[in-house]
Amino acid sequence: MSENFEAILRDGCGLVKDRPIIVGVSGGPDSLCLMEILRQAGYSLIIAHFDHQLRPESSQDARMVEMTAARLILDCIINGADVRAFADHEKLSLEEAARSLRYQFMFKLARKHNAQAVAVGHTADDQVETILMHFLRGSGLAGLKGMPYKSIVKIFDAEIPIVRPLLDMRREETIKFCAANDLSPHYDSSNDSFNFQRNRIRHSLIPELENYNPKFRDAVLRMSETLKGDHAFMLELLETAWHEIMIAVDEGVITLDFNLLSKNSLSLQRNLIKKAMQTLQPDIDVDFLTLERATHLIKDLSTSAVVDLKAGLRLYIENDLIFISKTNSKLPINLWPQLPDGRSIAISIPGQIELMGSWKLYSNYTPLDDLARAEAERNEDPFRVWLDAEQIPDSLELRVRRRGDRFFPLGMQGHSQKISDFFVNEKVPHRVREHWPLLCAGDEIFWVAGYRPSHSCRLTASTRKAFYFYLSNPLKKNR
Amino acid sequence: MSENFEAILRDGCGLVKDRPIIVGVSGGPDSLCLMEILRQAGYSLIIAHFDHQLRPESSQDARMVEMTAARLILDCIINGADVRAFADHEKLSLEEAARSLRYQFMFKLARKHNAQAVAVGHTADDQVETILMHFLRGSGLAGLKGMPYKSIVKIFDAEIPIVRPLLDMRREETIKFCAANDLSPHYDSSNDSFNFQRNRIRHSLIPELENYNPKFRDAVLRMSETLKGDHAFMLELLETAWHEIMIAVDEGVITLDFNLLSKNSLSLQRNLIKKAMQTLQPDIDVDFLTLERATHLIKDLSTSAVVDLKAGLRLYIENDLIFISKTNSKLPINLWPQLPDGRSIAISIPGQIELMGSWKLYSNYTPLDDLARAEAERNEDPFRVWLDAEQIPDSLELRVRRRGDRFFPLGMQGHSQKISDFFVNEKVPHRVREHWPLLCAGDEIFWVAGYRPSHSCRLTASTRKAFYFYLSNPLKKNR
Repeated sequence: MSENFEAILRDGCGLVKDRPIIVGVSGGPDSLCLMEILRQAGYSLIIAHFDHQLRPESSQDARMVEMTAARLILDCIINGADVRAFADHEKLSLEEAARSLRYQFMFKLARKHNAQAVAVGHTADDQVETILMHFLRGSGLAGLKGMPYKSIVKIFDAEIPIVRPLLDMRREETIKFCAANDLSPHYDSSNDSFNFQRNRIRHSLIPELENYNPKFRDAVLRMSETLKGDHAFMLELLETAWHEIMIAVDEGVITLDFNLLSKNSLSLQRNLIKKAMQTLQPDIDVDFLTLERATHLIKDLSTSAVVDLKAGLRLYIENDLIFISKTNSKLPINLWPQLPDGRSIAISIPGQIELMGSWKLYSNYTPLDDLARAEAERNEDPFRVWLDAEQIPDSLELRVRRRGDRFFPLGMQGHSQKISDFFVNEKVPHRVREHWPLLCAGDEIFWVAGYRPSHSCRLTASTRKAFYFYLSNPLKKNR
Repeated sequence: MSENFEAILRDGCGLVKDRPIIVGVSGGPDSLCLMEILRQAGYSLIIAHFDHQLRPESSQDARMVEMTAARLILDCIINGADVRAFADHEKLSLEEAARSLRYQFMFKLARKHNAQAVAVGHTADDQVETILMHFLRGSGLAGLKGMPYKSIVKIFDAEIPIVRPLLDMRREETIKFCAANDLSPHYDSSNDSFNFQRNRIRHSLIPELENYNPKFRDAVLRMSETLKGDHAFMLELLETAWHEIMIAVDEGVITLDFNLLSKNSLSLQRNLIKKAMQTLQPDIDVDFLTLERATHLIKDLSTSAVVDLKAGLRLYIENDLIFISKTNSKLPINLWPQLPDGRSIAISIPGQIELMGSWKLYSNYTPLDDLARAEAERNEDPFRVWLDAEQIPDSLELRVRRRGDRFFPLGMQGHSQKISDFFVNEKVPHRVREHWPLLCAGDEIFWVAGYRPSHSCRLTASTRKAFYFYLSNPLKKNR
């Protein structure tokens, strides 16, 4: 066991010696080599063989794996299914069907035996083929960097990783290793026989590319190493930016901070929007043009405040918020204070009232001494207000707007304005106007929370006693 | 002229209408199309044709370009050279020789005519070929992203860019455009005929890859777009990190801050070292293994403090500094205080003395009151010292070490040590020991600046008056 291999198993794959590993063994040289390397390194193994039943002799392969495991005193579990029937039924390619059933079997075993990982025998040659396939499809960094030693594949399990300890070993080295360790692999692995595209790439395209660069495989592996570093670097930065800029992840909707996002570089904007889209729809590929539509909208708000992205996702901009949402999802309303349908709520002072989405209105009396006056004057939070207590009745209520409501906004020299016009002027998001909380007594409006108090109850030099209202935003801590 | 093209010319290539552009025109469809698009868009053009003299009919091509330009009332300058002779003489491939001579000609013209750019007719197909060649060689992000609309190639000119307005246009579109605009390109461009590898890729490999993905070209172009964004993002971050971590760029040597560099991610370390190397040797490709040697040295200092990189570049680590330097370059000495050769300088108190590389020694008296004592005790800068004035004579000098010098380092209970041993123990960089400044009176050493005062003149409870010395580092503001 080379020191390098120990480091790959321990640091690269993150394996420990006191929890079992499920080892996928087809019976080919790669997987037998993997099994033996892990065994010699002293890990605790459970061998898993899946019989795809695609060839008449497939059950002999299963017997061979069983016997080899028995000789080495390793636990071995055989399972199988009619992959062809499953593929037909699910309208999958044979390869997809085989992969899906095989991994489902291994992860089920992993959970049952509390295993730390599922280990598979992908080699450096598999890596080159995988990267080449990604290149042919025009993948970005994430594909071009190739397979990592360790990864979580959420569709199989959110916690148990797949590990690939042989990524630095050439296929021919695994054959030599098997020979040197008295293992007799079979060669026509079913994996090979039904994966037509990979087979063609392996046996025809790569030899062709080696005419252009005899060291093509080494070149691709070196590229993979470099891109892995770049990818990790970008992910790290993206994660940091995401936590700064993301305000909320709700069912079908992600809310981002417009100001923070728009002041970042275009590339970061694109990557964050992509991350948001893939958080909502994990399987989609996000193309460049889609992301460009999004960044254009963010840059140039004059045209519109909504754009269709892709796969039923849309991007909306609303004041200083960006929503990325499924078309049929409601935008989150807890970003704004909203009253339940048609409700009017009496306010006791002191007291507190709960609105929708955990918003809360706190109310209190305060003598307007120098300190309170200074605080009121310095205040920059539009959801806090001090009102002259002598200018408003004690029986206040919080209610939604009514047809014909008028209001005397502070700073308009006592002129009145229709609430609907006030909302338009202040760019209150359309969808939240209907349930916006107004502090009233009957027809008179004293405060449009978040915007402006009424001229009639403003603080003056003669104010002695104030009502203090504070509408607390449950998301404020994140912003 | 499509709106898209206007945006590419203005925003992508950064072109303006009031300064001439040198347009490289071979006479093939790509370059004729480029010329005509720029002309129709109203830019000021100077047509440049370079006759490679590799085919008997090459002078006819030159005439054709000249006549076409004349018909469109465009300035046209023809030049040529015996590319084969140049290639033989300089031991270059025909392609390299042709490229070098052609671009030299165009950039000379550009400087002469105060042109804003040299425009060349690379198309989307050239882009695909270029990216594929990079992939075959195992390039990183910078190669895989392909050619940009605008780039500076320092070996040709540090300020005038090369622009490539046709990067989104397919080669067959340029042919159609020429036909529609009454231009008659010739087809056997000399460019094609001697670039063997590119020709094979164009005519044989790409059609082969289209058997694997019929939309292979589109896939590569999409990949290029995405990677360009990622690359710009990384460059931006790299630039920020560079300004933090780079201490000095001198002739043949770059100095980085060891502590700042080593606490960053491996990927960032690699990229910064690569940037430093390419700042010193702009033309080199920097491979992964070279960068790994560098990051290993930074991670694990125990083995050595120097490593050969590549192309005559080395990396040294010296205390908290990293040097990346050409083998024959002297490491910068202004990073350390150094006396001119063999000099001894008398110190007046108060006063100041200039050392090499703008280091300065300031000296003064100070009554050792509570404040001064507190400051002396709190001091963490080894280039500042307070010494008991009553324990040292007034006639001090700053000098380099002499054979047999001994010293009573503070903290060694009055034991003495040879200066040479003291330097070894303290890991003073070898190359700066010979000219290190010592504060002395005759044979007695009172302070090894940057390290330790002598036990004999240390501050004690009974010290009333101190000499204060401060050796100021000219680079300190950057660190």
